[in-house]
Amino acid sequence: MTVEIICVGTEILLGNIVNTNAAYLAEKCAGLGLSCYFQSVVGDNEERLTQVLTCAVERSDIVILSGGLGPTEDDLTKEVAAKVCGRKLAVDERSMERIAEYFAARDIKPTENNWKQAMMPEGAIILDNNNGTAPGVIIETEGAKVILLPGPPNELLPMFEESVAPYLDKLTPGIISSQTVKICGVSESQVETTVKDMIDQQTNPTIATYAKTGEVHIRVTAAADNEKQANKLIKPVVKELKARFGEDVYTTDVDVTLEKAVADLLVANKLSVTCAESCTGGMLSARLINVPGVSDVYKAGFVTYSNKSKKKLLGVKKATLDKHGAVSAHTAEEMAKGAALAVKADVAVAITGIAGPDGGSKEKPVGLVYIACAVKGKVTVKKYHFKGNRNKIREGATSAALILMRKCMLEYFSKVTFGKK
Amino acid sequence: MTVEIICVGTEILLGNIVNTNAAYLAEKCAGLGLSCYFQSVVGDNEERLTQVLTCAVERSDIVILSGGLGPTEDDLTKEVAAKVCGRKLAVDERSMERIAEYFAARDIKPTENNWKQAMMPEGAIILDNNNGTAPGVIIETEGAKVILLPGPPNELLPMFEESVAPYLDKLTPGIISSQTVKICGVSESQVETTVKDMIDQQTNPTIATYAKTGEVHIRVTAAADNEKQANKLIKPVVKELKARFGEDVYTTDVDVTLEKAVADLLVANKLSVTCAESCTGGMLSARLINVPGVSDVYKAGFVTYSNKSKKKLLGVKKATLDKHGAVSAHTAEEMAKGAALAVKADVAVAITGIAGPDGGSKEKPVGLVYIACAVKGKVTVKKYHFKGNRNKIREGATSAALILMRKCMLEYFSKVTFGKK
Repeated sequence: MTVEIICVGTEILLGNIVNTNAAYLAEKCAGLGLSCYFQSVVGDNEERLTQVLTCAVERSDIVILSGGLGPTEDDLTKEVAAKVCGRKLAVDERSMERIAEYFAARDIKPTENNWKQAMMPEGAIILDNNNGTAPGVIIETEGAKVILLPGPPNELLPMFEESVAPYLDKLTPGIISSQTVKICGVSESQVETTVKDMIDQQTNPTIATYAKTGEVHIRVTAAADNEKQANKLIKPVVKELKARFGEDVYTTDVDVTLEKAVADLLVANKLSVTCAESCTGGMLSARLINVPGVSDVYKAGFVTYSNKSKKKLLGVKKATLDKHGAVSAHTAEEMAKGAALAVKADVAVAITGIAGPDGGSKEKPVGLVYIACAVKGKVTVKKYHFKGNRNKIREGATSAALILMRKCMLEYFSKVTFGKK
Repeated sequence: MTVEIICVGTEILLGNIVNTNAAYLAEKCAGLGLSCYFQSVVGDNEERLTQVLTCAVERSDIVILSGGLGPTEDDLTKEVAAKVCGRKLAVDERSMERIAEYFAARDIKPTENNWKQAMMPEGAIILDNNNGTAPGVIIETEGAKVILLPGPPNELLPMFEESVAPYLDKLTPGIISSQTVKICGVSESQVETTVKDMIDQQTNPTIATYAKTGEVHIRVTAAADNEKQANKLIKPVVKELKARFGEDVYTTDVDVTLEKAVADLLVANKLSVTCAESCTGGMLSARLINVPGVSDVYKAGFVTYSNKSKKKLLGVKKATLDKHGAVSAHTAEEMAKGAALAVKADVAVAITGIAGPDGGSKEKPVGLVYIACAVKGKVTVKKYHFKGNRNKIREGATSAALILMRKCMLEYFSKVTFGKK
């Protein structure tokens, strides 16, 4: 079954906003087993919208439109869709009531325009909008099913989840299910080489890789009759990927981020943590603190951008800074040790580097970063070279610090567990 | 003159990536005075791509395609475009040389496939690709000009800037120029009310508002024969906006961010700065430190997420925490004062709040944030209520802190200057 997505809106045509609705709808439809062959963007213009929609209903089974359902004269998606589908518009009593309720609850008086939103194509299915005034609409014609959704993402997303996904689910026989294996600290090309044979042989499930900063995600997707069958297809592939990448797989849960995986390790092992950051300037702490519940282990963080603050707050020695410079393995190590000592933390991570655009030299180019991680007094220091602009370098360093923390903790545990220390 | 954008790629159809190329091309074309009425996305499929492109060349003056120029069998944008435009493909010697050079420079042996990228539609204009192997192509037919660009943004963007923009500029008679007025600390609806009469009367230049976290940007866009004429149209409107919003306008330079404006104020007035963050966990420091050159004034930052660290690193009194709680005006004030004292900074800003999802109560709900800013000892504390998820609340608080810093500094200077203190 094929689906086609049409987004209506001048802001998209002008490039003022990125079309995230299309990406959202496309991903959801793919997940429901629908094939999407076309996406279009068109403005609030009767002639052009008619042209695009007429073409779409002829070649696709399902057409999803977003935008142009507002109360103003400009909004004419519903009018055009009704015309293309050969339906008249009539007052929908329930929509009328809901619009009245919406305004009453907000103590605002609706304008004459607002009632335009209660005019519906005859015989259409009306979808409640719990986050705005424009209801959604499904027009079922003999050829295609035409689904109209409001443009604002905070209205479109919940309406899709609540009403459209269950509707589409009933239309399609099978399901598409996927699982994501998240790998950290391995380059994209290394990952691709490692799974090349699996990708070459793939039919169902399929395997696709996605590069992120410091991470590669592998999505395993199966088409099946039901969830159970899909899981049966996916499970052995995920198992094989775990076997090939070992500890570099930090999760197979799509909702778990790298910082969450690190925070979980800290919490599970009751390890308190502190961060001392120079060039990243707080980005590492900010990522860790975005994990709810990290307050159990996060003690405090230091942003020591100046040499003075490295000495004063972390006790980095003047001699070290003079001899090796602020961007050096020695300084990184002293920063980590100093931070751990200052707040009595079990794990301390320190980042010092040159984020550019200035400050680089031949010996110490822009992008050079040292990261030190201390776990219960044992310090590991690594040297990195990141590419890109100031922000890219800082993001790369932040991810690398999380990966190093994870690695150092895992090593520490394995040694503790097996008594190899 | 009309332009139409076609993006070729299965990743976009599947919703795996957001179509940023379309937004980029649309914005650039609008800036060149071209009218974009249609955008489409289609996969690497001969029949469907032919269908979409045939329709596009019939209805638009210029058609820009991105993607599908790679070396593999799947990539067939060039082949389809040649066919639709009635051209044959032939070896292009210069492209052949450049591909050989590209691989030689990287010490990689090109595969047979790579030479496919040197096959070009006869009579086409070839655009050098300085960041990859796929050259761009312009096919000029009697009806439309068809422009083929590589899909990866890091190849498409520079090729557009270097080759396509100058080409399109010559085709179009006038120019479109715009200036952005950035306003902080004023709500979107307040901004809209303040400029409603200007928007209602707008013809040329046009006025559009864009809401950002804590900010509203107003873009003033004029169509004119040349840059000088455009500036003449834009200047009085920008002047009027500045008059209406006064000090809330923090810049009219599109490249200046809020953190840059704050950092510039600090640097210009030789004020050193420190940040003490609880719920934002380093986000404020990270934003300030993303401004190159801030090292002249940024002393150090504290991430004091726990009560213990608030006491230890910032000297917040136990009695204050016991009586008023960590999320209170009193604690925010003591955090700011303590940070200023600890590193002897002229300006200190402190953030403490409840980012959720847990930790809220009836008296102190999720989203409650106190921000304190001390400028040379004078402390201002403000209470905020932010909405949204954990990250939205933290981003809102970070922007609010920058806005408060700016406001406190401006107030301080005005009092110093006019001797009103």
